[in-house]
Amino acid sequence: METPVCTDACGPEQPFDVFARTCPSRETLEHVTGRWGSLTVGALREGPCRFNELRRRVEGVSEKMLSQTLHALERDGIVNREAQPTNPPRVDYELTPLGIEVADRLLALIHYLEGNMSAVLTARETYDGTRGGR
Amino acid sequence: METPVCTDACGPEQPFDVFARTCPSRETLEHVTGRWGSLTVGALREGPCRFNELRRRVEGVSEKMLSQTLHALERDGIVNREAQPTNPPRVDYELTPLGIEVADRLLALIHYLEGNMSAVLTARETYDGTRGGR
Repeated sequence: METPVCTDACGPEQPFDVFARTCPSRETLEHVTGRWGSLTVGALREGPCRFNELRRRVEGVSEKMLSQTLHALERDGIVNREAQPTNPPRVDYELTPLGIEVADRLLALIHYLEGNMSAVLTARETYDGTRGGR
Repeated sequence: METPVCTDACGPEQPFDVFARTCPSRETLEHVTGRWGSLTVGALREGPCRFNELRRRVEGVSEKMLSQTLHALERDGIVNREAQPTNPPRVDYELTPLGIEVADRLLALIHYLEGNMSAVLTARETYDGTRGGR
């Protein structure tokens, strides 16, 4: 398979590179790992979900932020928005095949962090104990 | 191994859960995946790095934001800050063993996105073409 290249920002011979300031891959990484993006993608890995179900699952997200998050993810081809022809119309959100691959990698990170929070909390105690007074 | 539990927020019988609003794992996820956190952790996977080297690698980050990012990652036990006893003092930043595990999972996500940006850009074109007028 040919290596895809970033024609926008990284030069015609450069692959996409999140470390390059204007590479569009950096923006997509932000959509997927942003404060609400990561939780939205993670929650949708459990299956298609309506807006209000999703809002309950992603505790603390506002209606506006969830809506913005879903729009950005839909535009990037991570999330699919499906309006059912019912009355009242029912809108389901689900991950695309690309979104499922992204979600699996993100959840590997999330589950690793959740499983190692005792080490993180110990590190915080040590840090605050030795440097809290700085 | 005993499953670690989140005594702070998720109840004594609950494991850490990023979907819970006040679970500390959500904060750590934000430190690791935040706009500059993800790039800082990714860059440090290449090896120990001085502040200014890191600032050049993470294109676009300000001195203040990189400093804040490194402090949060150091407090969480992801990054180690090592001051060399030289004159002038030289400070190296490196990933801890926990940080290396986190970085590897994050880089799996980053590399997947970089390798699939052509699909993302195609999705954006389709989205903007069909919905741009909304």
